[in-house]
Amino acid sequence: MSATVESPTRYTVGVDFGTESARAVVVDLATGRELAESTSVYPSGVISEALPGSGVLLGADWALQDADDYLGCLTETVTRALAASGVPRESVIGIAIDATACTIVPTLADSTPLSRLVDYRDDPHAWVKLWKHHAAQPQADRINVLAATSDDFDLAPYGGRVSSEWLLPKTLQVYEEAPRIFERADRFIEAQDWITWQLTGVESHSAQAAGFKANFRVEAGGYASARALDSLAPGFSAVLDRLSTDFSAAGARVGSLVPSWADALGLPIGIAVATGSMDAQVSMVACDATAPGRMVLVMGTSICNLLLAETGIPVEGLAGVVRDAIVPGVWAYEAGQAGVGDMFGWFVRNSVPASYTERARELGLDVFGYLESLAGSVEPGRNPVLALDWWSGNRSPLADSALSGAVIGYSLATRPENVYRALLEAAAFGQRAIIDTFQGAGIAVDDIVACGGLPQKSPLFMQLLADITGREIQVSHSSQAGALGAAIHAAVAAGPEAGGFASLGEAGNALGGNRSDVYSPDPTATAAYESSYADYQELVTYFGSQNVGVMHRLKRRASDGIAAS
Amino acid sequence: MSATVESPTRYTVGVDFGTESARAVVVDLATGRELAESTSVYPSGVISEALPGSGVLLGADWALQDADDYLGCLTETVTRALAASGVPRESVIGIAIDATACTIVPTLADSTPLSRLVDYRDDPHAWVKLWKHHAAQPQADRINVLAATSDDFDLAPYGGRVSSEWLLPKTLQVYEEAPRIFERADRFIEAQDWITWQLTGVESHSAQAAGFKANFRVEAGGYASARALDSLAPGFSAVLDRLSTDFSAAGARVGSLVPSWADALGLPIGIAVATGSMDAQVSMVACDATAPGRMVLVMGTSICNLLLAETGIPVEGLAGVVRDAIVPGVWAYEAGQAGVGDMFGWFVRNSVPASYTERARELGLDVFGYLESLAGSVEPGRNPVLALDWWSGNRSPLADSALSGAVIGYSLATRPENVYRALLEAAAFGQRAIIDTFQGAGIAVDDIVACGGLPQKSPLFMQLLADITGREIQVSHSSQAGALGAAIHAAVAAGPEAGGFASLGEAGNALGGNRSDVYSPDPTATAAYESSYADYQELVTYFGSQNVGVMHRLKRRASDGIAAS
Repeated sequence: MSATVESPTRYTVGVDFGTESARAVVVDLATGRELAESTSVYPSGVISEALPGSGVLLGADWALQDADDYLGCLTETVTRALAASGVPRESVIGIAIDATACTIVPTLADSTPLSRLVDYRDDPHAWVKLWKHHAAQPQADRINVLAATSDDFDLAPYGGRVSSEWLLPKTLQVYEEAPRIFERADRFIEAQDWITWQLTGVESHSAQAAGFKANFRVEAGGYASARALDSLAPGFSAVLDRLSTDFSAAGARVGSLVPSWADALGLPIGIAVATGSMDAQVSMVACDATAPGRMVLVMGTSICNLLLAETGIPVEGLAGVVRDAIVPGVWAYEAGQAGVGDMFGWFVRNSVPASYTERARELGLDVFGYLESLAGSVEPGRNPVLALDWWSGNRSPLADSALSGAVIGYSLATRPENVYRALLEAAAFGQRAIIDTFQGAGIAVDDIVACGGLPQKSPLFMQLLADITGREIQVSHSSQAGALGAAIHAAVAAGPEAGGFASLGEAGNALGGNRSDVYSPDPTATAAYESSYADYQELVTYFGSQNVGVMHRLKRRASDGIAAS
Repeated sequence: MSATVESPTRYTVGVDFGTESARAVVVDLATGRELAESTSVYPSGVISEALPGSGVLLGADWALQDADDYLGCLTETVTRALAASGVPRESVIGIAIDATACTIVPTLADSTPLSRLVDYRDDPHAWVKLWKHHAAQPQADRINVLAATSDDFDLAPYGGRVSSEWLLPKTLQVYEEAPRIFERADRFIEAQDWITWQLTGVESHSAQAAGFKANFRVEAGGYASARALDSLAPGFSAVLDRLSTDFSAAGARVGSLVPSWADALGLPIGIAVATGSMDAQVSMVACDATAPGRMVLVMGTSICNLLLAETGIPVEGLAGVVRDAIVPGVWAYEAGQAGVGDMFGWFVRNSVPASYTERARELGLDVFGYLESLAGSVEPGRNPVLALDWWSGNRSPLADSALSGAVIGYSLATRPENVYRALLEAAAFGQRAIIDTFQGAGIAVDDIVACGGLPQKSPLFMQLLADITGREIQVSHSSQAGALGAAIHAAVAAGPEAGGFASLGEAGNALGGNRSDVYSPDPTATAAYESSYADYQELVTYFGSQNVGVMHRLKRRASDGIAAS
C-alpha cells in the first residue's frame, strides 16, 4: 500500500445518497480507513402515496423524492462526520458523492428543481423520480416492443430490455402525462449529477449513468435516434435537447467546491469535486476492483454484480455492458438479484413464530441471529425445503419482474429454520447462476469481493455463497463501500499534487484492499450442493420459462385484486 | 323423525377410540341429540420412542399403543358421561364402540393381549400397532411390487396399492422381525373388535375393517391366497390361521354386555353390543348417509371421503371400494386427503409472527380466529399466493406419501393471511379434485355432509369448500360424529323390540339428520376460482406426475439428513 508517507496525512469526504438516507465518511488517504461516518434520513423519505404539502395523491408504483432533501442531508452528514473525525479542515482535499440511479431530477437551466417552483410543486411529475418509481412500466413495455420489432433500438447490450426504472421510460411518462412539465424542464438529470452541480456550479454528467441507465452508447454514437424516439411518441425526440452530452469520466475533477457550500459544509473553498457516481458502481474502486476479472457483489436488500472485462459482448440475461463506465477503454458489466436481504427481512417479519421471538429474547439474540444459529445446524445438501428466491422477481438472468417466490418441500416436520435456510440457499443458487452465465459467455470471474451491509448481517449466507459457488468470497472491510468509493474518487479528482492519487486503479489499490473476512468453500459442502442446485435449476426452468404463465397470472391477480387489510 | 313417541325414551352409549383419547356420548333415541359426552386420554398415548416400563427403544416411524389403555378409558368415559347425562341406567338399551383402523392387537385365543404377558412385554411387536405405525413400509412396498408383477394380488379395488398402515404389511413385519411373537399370537385383531370381544365375551370381526384394511374381498373369495402370502415370505400364509373369518355386519348384535363390564360401566347386564366400527366409516350413519349418493367428509387433521354406490368399480386414485361395509349389498368407497387440519395447525404454530399473536390477544381472539378474519377479506380468486396442500403427502388421487407441500407467489407484499388462505384454498382444491374423480368415474355425488372438528374450527374453510366445489356443504350437528354413529349402531343392535331401530337406514334417518350449518356456494366466487383451480391442477401435474422426482428427492434428503435441532 503506497501513500503519501512523508507528507502530512490528507483526507477526502465521500457522501452516499441511498434510498432512505445519506451517509458521509471521512477517509484517511494513508490507510483507506474511514475515520468517521454520519447518516441523515431524508425528511420526506420515499414519497409514494401523496405529495408533501399539497397532499396530491400518487398512483400505484410511484416513488418520488424531494431534491432539497438531498441538500439538507448533505450539510448535516458532512458537518457531523467531519466533527466526529477530528480532522483539521485544511487537510481535506476533495469531496465526491454517489447516489441511487436511475433517479431523475427535472430542472431549469440554472439547476433549480421544478418542484421548488410554486407553479409546479403540486404536479407529481415536477418531483424527483426515484430509481424505484415503477409507474413508467407501460412506457418501458412500448420501448421493448419497438426494440423487438425494429432496428431503431439495439437493446442487446442491455440484455434485450429496458427497465421501467431507466431514463427513457421515466421521461416518456413525463412527456405523455405532463407535457407542461416536460416543456418547462430544461434538463432531466441524474441526482448524482445534480448534487455535484450544486457543489461546483458546473453542469456535468456522468458517462457511467448515461451508459447504464440512459441507453447512451459511446460505440453506437450516443443516445437513441430522434427517429426512434419520435416513433414512440411524436415529438418525444425533444428529450434529446434536455439531456446533456457533456460527460465526465469516473474520478475526473468536475470543478472546485464553491464558497457557499464550502461554508455550509465546513470545508476549504476550491477543493476538488469529482464526477458523481452510481451507488453500486462506485463500490468497485472501494473493493479494489479496477481491473478485469474481479467481481464485486454489492450486497444489501438486493445484490448488484459488477465486473470489468476487456471486451464487451452482449450476453442474454445480464442487465448491461457499458464501455468507459469505470475505467477508460474497459467494459463494465452489471447483473444482479432483485431481492435478497429484503427477502430475508420479509421472512423474519412475516414468518417467524412468537415462540422463536421469545426464545431469541431469552438467549439475548435478535431473531436474525437466532435463526442463523438454528439454520446453521442443517447439513449442507440435506435441507428438505427448496426455494426460488424471486420475492422481487428475477433480474438476472431472466429479467422478469412478474416472477415471484416459491417454497417447496413443506411437511409437518418443517421448521422455520428449514425455510429460512432454504431462502439463503436459493439466493446463493441464484448467484451461482449469474456467475455461471458470465463464465459461460467467456467473461472471466477470477475472484469475488463482497461489500454492503448483508455480509455483516448474515455470516451464514456468506458461507453458503462460498460453498454453493465453490469460490472464495472476500468481504470488504468497509461497511460503507459506496461512501468510501466516493471518497476515493475525490482523491483521484484532487490528484497527486494535492496529496491524492493519479488514477482510480492506483487509488483503489492503495485504499480499497482492506478486508474484514474471507469465506472459503468447504469442498464437501460444495459437492453436497450439486444435486440441490440441479433441482433449483429444474424449478427455474419450469417457473421461469417452460410455464411462466402460472406466476404471471398470480401477479396479475395481486394487482387486480384487493390486498388483505 | 320417527321414534318411540309413546314409549319411555330410550338411550344408547357410543364410545369412539381415537388416536390420543376415547370419548363417550349418551344419545337420546327420540331426537338423536347427545345428552352428555366425556373424554379420557390414554395414559401411554401414542408410543413412538420407547416402550413404557422397559424403555426399549423403537425405530423410526413406529407408533404403538397399550391395549389396556383402551379398557381403562372405556370405564372412565362411560361412567362419567352417564353421570353427566342424568339418564337412568335401566333406560340404556345398548352400547357400541368404534376405533381407529387399521390398529392391530396381537392376542392369545382367550383375547389376552400379548403385551400383558411378562414374557413378551419388552418386545415392541407384542404391543398394539396403531394405524399410523409406518415402519412396515418396506413390507408394503414388496406387496405392491408383487401385485404389480403377478396376478396373485388384485389391488385394483384399493386404487392399486396397499398402504403401510394396513394389516398385511403390519403382520408381515411381525412375521419377519419377531417370529416368536408371530408364533405366540393366536389372533391379529382390529382394536374395535378386540374391545367388543371384552364387552361380550364373543369374538367377532368387523366385515368393514376386513374389507378396507385387510384386503378381504367378499366378491373374490376372501383374503389373499396362501400362495401369494408365501411368495412374500415362505410360511407367511400362517397368518391366515390368525385372522378370523367370523364376520359380523355393521349394526349387527355381536352379543350381550357381560356382567363384569355392566358392573364396571354402570349399565344393565345383557344389553345389546353392536359390531365395532371403523372411526371414519361409523360417521356415515351419524350423517344419515346410508344410501348411495350422499358423500360424507370426516374432517379433522385429515379428511376422509366416504360414499355409497350401487356398483363397485375400481377407480384409480381412490383408496378403496368394499362391498357390504356399511349397508348390505351396497358398495362403500373411501378416499381422502392426508393432511388438512394438521397443515393449518402447522401454519399457526410455525409461520405466524409475534406481531400477529399480540394483535390477536389484544382483540381477544385466538390466532386461528384472527387469521380467519384477515384471510376472509381477501377476495375469491384474487389471492396472489397458490399452494399445494401436500404437507402429509397426497392420499387421493395420487396415493404418494413422498410428495410435500408447496407455496408459490411470494413477494414482499405477501402477508401471513395470504399464505393461510392459500392453504385453505389448496385443501379445497384438493377436495374438488377428489369429488371430480368420483363424478368422472360415473359415481354420483348428490350431496355432501361434513362432520368432525374442522367445520367448527374454520368456517372460512367451509365457505371456501362450498365456493370452490360449487356445492352446498351441510354440517352435521354432532361434534362427535364417531361416537354418535357408534350409539346409532347400538340402537340397531338393540332392535325395535327394545326401543331401538330395525336398520341402519332407519336409524340414520331418525337420528343422523341434525345439521348445525349449511354452507352454500356463492356463484360469483365459484366462477372466480375456476382459473385458480386450473393453476392448481398445473402444479399438481408438474409436481405430482410430470416431474415427481423433485419432491421425492427432497423427501429423501429429509430422511437421510439430520433435522435442524
